[in-house]
Amino acid sequence: MNKFDDIEIIYEDSPLDLNPDGRIKLRNPHMDCLESDFLYHLGLDTKKNNLKQMFGDVKFICMGGTAERMQDFAQLVANELGIDGSPVDLAKDSHRYSMFKIGPVLSVSHGMGVSSLSILMHELFKVAHYADCKDLCFFRIGTSGGLGVPPGSIIITDKAVDELMRPFFELHISGKIVRRSCRFDAKLIEELKEIAKKQSNQYETFTGTTMCAMDFYETQSRLDGAFCNYTKEDKQNFLQKLSKNGVKNIEMEALVFGSMCQMACVRGAIVCVTLLNRLDGDQIASSKACLRELQNRPQRLVLDYIKYKLSQ
Amino acid sequence: MNKFDDIEIIYEDSPLDLNPDGRIKLRNPHMDCLESDFLYHLGLDTKKNNLKQMFGDVKFICMGGTAERMQDFAQLVANELGIDGSPVDLAKDSHRYSMFKIGPVLSVSHGMGVSSLSILMHELFKVAHYADCKDLCFFRIGTSGGLGVPPGSIIITDKAVDELMRPFFELHISGKIVRRSCRFDAKLIEELKEIAKKQSNQYETFTGTTMCAMDFYETQSRLDGAFCNYTKEDKQNFLQKLSKNGVKNIEMEALVFGSMCQMACVRGAIVCVTLLNRLDGDQIASSKACLRELQNRPQRLVLDYIKYKLSQ
Repeated sequence: MNKFDDIEIIYEDSPLDLNPDGRIKLRNPHMDCLESDFLYHLGLDTKKNNLKQMFGDVKFICMGGTAERMQDFAQLVANELGIDGSPVDLAKDSHRYSMFKIGPVLSVSHGMGVSSLSILMHELFKVAHYADCKDLCFFRIGTSGGLGVPPGSIIITDKAVDELMRPFFELHISGKIVRRSCRFDAKLIEELKEIAKKQSNQYETFTGTTMCAMDFYETQSRLDGAFCNYTKEDKQNFLQKLSKNGVKNIEMEALVFGSMCQMACVRGAIVCVTLLNRLDGDQIASSKACLRELQNRPQRLVLDYIKYKLSQ
Repeated sequence: MNKFDDIEIIYEDSPLDLNPDGRIKLRNPHMDCLESDFLYHLGLDTKKNNLKQMFGDVKFICMGGTAERMQDFAQLVANELGIDGSPVDLAKDSHRYSMFKIGPVLSVSHGMGVSSLSILMHELFKVAHYADCKDLCFFRIGTSGGLGVPPGSIIITDKAVDELMRPFFELHISGKIVRRSCRFDAKLIEELKEIAKKQSNQYETFTGTTMCAMDFYETQSRLDGAFCNYTKEDKQNFLQKLSKNGVKNIEMEALVFGSMCQMACVRGAIVCVTLLNRLDGDQIASSKACLRELQNRPQRLVLDYIKYKLSQ
């Protein structure tokens, strides 16, 4: 035991139940005292923007890493839902994220890593609250490294763990270590799997555990970072152990996405394509055109889900 | 003790000494086995790009959150160093970061949070290695929340801690907890302070401890996030405790910046402006024009340092 190990640890869990009225659950008693709210990283202000008018009809919030990919997705949604016009970036003033609205669908870039996604989700949850959105569904549409599955496979996350195989999201709040559970909506996963079955047979769709890593190189056991103090064998042992424990892919946001959806009582799913099989290597070697095609796959699945839901 | 507390903890420290030959120190024996290297998040490839030709003359690598701010900085550098032409984004193909080169200065956006900055630094260190750069100096030019200093102050980081006041950067590598020390170059800090003394007397420049937080809301004790399970008093107690322990500002990247510079044996400094005094509130209430002016202050200090060094 050293002087840093004497810190209180709190385990937090919250029921997966949705709110009966379909609203998002903010867990902050101080919100009522706010005269106005400037959502700094979205560049939106409750004093200047009528958030209910702007976002009241949103049903699906789709998030992914880059602005370019989320603009492409917005265009795809517009085309397939038959909505005219080019997507406009509603978060342009913030210079932090890009956000496009196409009818009931919001397509937003989240950058890389848990911190960047966390800021976005806090502010989107508040937007949903002010806009009085109901029956929302969140998606992360991403890229990832696969484990033991062919590159180009789709992984729907049913469990998320950190790099120590721990199934919680850890935060340090007010001098304490808080460990929040991270569970995913089983019904939503089943619905996505059903839709995947009807899709292209050129690639497979799996459900499985996603490892959420803090960095791209060392915590993911890559051998090609600026630093690497483990051997090839250490790496293979680590990745094999993950694979044997059900980890199908590795990315950098799953734990914060899952735990925040659970906390807010909203449905959420992570749908990622695998760009490579990490058991075979570290470098992403596909051509640009090929990467673009791969990135379309999770978009296709989520869009087909949205179309199915809108047709009901 | 629960089942998650039985994990080996490794403390890593490395000397602050610079390499005698002025080169960056990669700590990865596997690098020599790489036939070629695709720096995925920069969109650069050792097979296709002549990195030595592109970056061999770089001496100063300046990083900050948004692409827009780093493009502005690049333009400012071009104007003041008398270099013609508009800055061109050299990382455009990656859609992850924006990178502008103006003579010996590289101006790069790093997104938000330790994960996003970590990826960038791994890949910039590798660029520096392939380009055989010498005597490099890294800067993070950022925004932050201040503690007990007037909004608009400049903070030069001389120590970084996490939200539990621990002075190390923690990573989970190959199933172990690795805690890396994070120290800053004292000479560089002194030089920056000297230059700051000659600058505007409209705002103050401090050195002090920077708290590096994992998120913007809960780990920074804000009361205006989507979730908040502490009271106003808890918040004040926490922030007061930080302040009494020398914390001058809070941001989201200091630990990974400091520990990675230390590991690579390169000089690095963090220069941030404070956008508000967190002892007085949580919301960033300044006008856009005012925020823009504030963001220029750390840019001004770093640019004056660069000009001083180039004139020697």
